[in-house]
Amino acid sequence: MAKKLDICLSPAQLSLFDLKGKVVVIIDVLRATSTINAALANSVKEVIPVSTIEEGLEYKTKGYIVGAERGGKKYEGFSYGNSPYEYMTEEVKGKSVVLTTSNGTRALKMSQAADEIITASFLNVNAVIKYLKNQAKDIILFCSGWKDRFSLEDTMCAGSIAQGLADSTTTNADSTFAAIHLYTSHANNLFEALQKSAHFHRLSHNGMLKDIEYCVKENTYDSIPVWNGKALTLMP
Amino acid sequence: MAKKLDICLSPAQLSLFDLKGKVVVIIDVLRATSTINAALANSVKEVIPVSTIEEGLEYKTKGYIVGAERGGKKYEGFSYGNSPYEYMTEEVKGKSVVLTTSNGTRALKMSQAADEIITASFLNVNAVIKYLKNQAKDIILFCSGWKDRFSLEDTMCAGSIAQGLADSTTTNADSTFAAIHLYTSHANNLFEALQKSAHFHRLSHNGMLKDIEYCVKENTYDSIPVWNGKALTLMP
Repeated sequence: MAKKLDICLSPAQLSLFDLKGKVVVIIDVLRATSTINAALANSVKEVIPVSTIEEGLEYKTKGYIVGAERGGKKYEGFSYGNSPYEYMTEEVKGKSVVLTTSNGTRALKMSQAADEIITASFLNVNAVIKYLKNQAKDIILFCSGWKDRFSLEDTMCAGSIAQGLADSTTTNADSTFAAIHLYTSHANNLFEALQKSAHFHRLSHNGMLKDIEYCVKENTYDSIPVWNGKALTLMP
Repeated sequence: MAKKLDICLSPAQLSLFDLKGKVVVIIDVLRATSTINAALANSVKEVIPVSTIEEGLEYKTKGYIVGAERGGKKYEGFSYGNSPYEYMTEEVKGKSVVLTTSNGTRALKMSQAADEIITASFLNVNAVIKYLKNQAKDIILFCSGWKDRFSLEDTMCAGSIAQGLADSTTTNADSTFAAIHLYTSHANNLFEALQKSAHFHRLSHNGMLKDIEYCVKENTYDSIPVWNGKALTLMP
């Protein structure tokens, strides 16, 4: 029997899914899971996600590089935020990076009951599709959304993965149909489509258009961040 | 300033919305809000929604006509279910009908903090659009979904209403963009599109294709069911 695929459209709906025995794919296109992939691809040793600003500050005191974002902005008192570009420098190579963001790190913490947790973004969709095809577990694509609400960019990314897995998975969920439709009808103009998204407006007001352009490019990386129980590292 | 429009994609997300001062539009295309409109248009005096089977049985003992549905099927021990056709007979005219369904009546009960509650389905979208255009309150389109999950048919119906109100409302919600897109790209073949929905499979297994065909016809009625604090009646 083909493995099952389901899409959770927002953290507010995660309780409807049984994560046991499943692989959960965390998606936070703008920007946590894009940034995590960029950082690890740039030889950051590991990304340690933490839920609160307080935990971030603790790590900072210990000398860690800590990225903190709330409401789409770098949090006061931190040198790093949630932009992929901040983690492409020589300075961070080989180091552990601690990251706390509005939605993505929270989604990761919420998924601990899963058998396996990986992260996806447009930057690594093909690698994720290939990996999921060749493993046996049922799959939940978990859209981090924005403050428990539906987000267009995460849903489209989930649609892209679901589309790539259509022949090797079964689904009877309306969310999968909707996500695939939203992705396929905008696949050739993701950046334009996302200009209609709420998050686009939040970030573009903060002058982060460059980040968005980076985050909607598909398949920049051929790697997959995977949760090892303490941190995210690249899948070997 | 233009009034605001937002779409709540499932009951699991309703807590994210402040209903105070707003008009909430309950949507349960398959089949509660379609059936309610059909019944009232057929001169049923009022539809009294109740949450539980027990409440339904109490009303039945008192001699009321009671429709009860769970899991897409007529509930054992009741003569009426949740099919619009059951409420188009001479027998029900002028009578009070009590209705308990899986999702739609629950959504109605959850919306009591709103200033005003009306119901919509494909059967009355134009009437709903016209009414909402000519009133001043902010609007929440509330998709009843299926057991707290996203449903395609309710989202498409919300998209149809949002599309009709695009010039007279503001929204910055991704759910609105997605719903409008899902509706407009399937507006000419709603029945075909809904064959991909989970609920279609649930109902068609129960031999209710005829109900679905009826429920996806747009603008059969020019009337709007409205909540009066106790029951739904047609808006004068």
